[in-house]
Amino acid sequence: MNKKRQPGDTHEIKMHVWLEKDGGVYFGQGRYDLLMKIEELGSLKLAAEAMGISYRGAWGKIKKTEEIIGEKLIEKESNKEGYKLTVFGKKFMDEFNSLHSDILEFAVKRSSEMMSRIL
Amino acid sequence: MNKKRQPGDTHEIKMHVWLEKDGGVYFGQGRYDLLMKIEELGSLKLAAEAMGISYRGAWGKIKKTEEIIGEKLIEKESNKEGYKLTVFGKKFMDEFNSLHSDILEFAVKRSSEMMSRIL
Repeated sequence: MNKKRQPGDTHEIKMHVWLEKDGGVYFGQGRYDLLMKIEELGSLKLAAEAMGISYRGAWGKIKKTEEIIGEKLIEKESNKEGYKLTVFGKKFMDEFNSLHSDILEFAVKRSSEMMSRIL
Repeated sequence: MNKKRQPGDTHEIKMHVWLEKDGGVYFGQGRYDLLMKIEELGSLKLAAEAMGISYRGAWGKIKKTEEIIGEKLIEKESNKEGYKLTVFGKKFMDEFNSLHSDILEFAVKRSSEMMSRIL
């Protein structure tokens, strides 16, 4: 029991955050990653494959989120196969990313203060 | 697509937070709940059962946490069977609870601000 915290110890706080409405998840890290993959690959089919989920499952998740927030997140590429993020979709992703970063920054500060005090 | 956010809509942010050292989880909601059950039931065996995990698994988790933080979290009741939280164990639980509350409070404010702005 002599493992008191030393400078250089890598104690870290980790977190997941997600959004719910009426008890149902409608956005979190999984959907964030799926939408990033759609933007990167230009295809819902390839994005679903890359995430190891079915096309139907990926489609269902995105439609549920769009329904709840009342905005489209993805749209067909004009004159092409495939999908891309809508302007709102990009904004929503940026907002979630910024929300996540701000909470994590707060959590890191708050937990460092706690660990310095008690460990 | 006419489900724009209304007053009274129950959009909520949810989160899990946990602590890691060198990439290994050593404390989170599961261990918090397990320790609460030990304090409530005065028994590691009954607490493990209540959590649906094995005695050995529960013991291993607590020993790992104690090893990493360098303090005992539970101790034998004097002259009795069973376990209770140590003074440090209670303090650590209070600190984690307070850490969790503060982060959640920040997350709720930050996400409300985001939702009011974009939904």
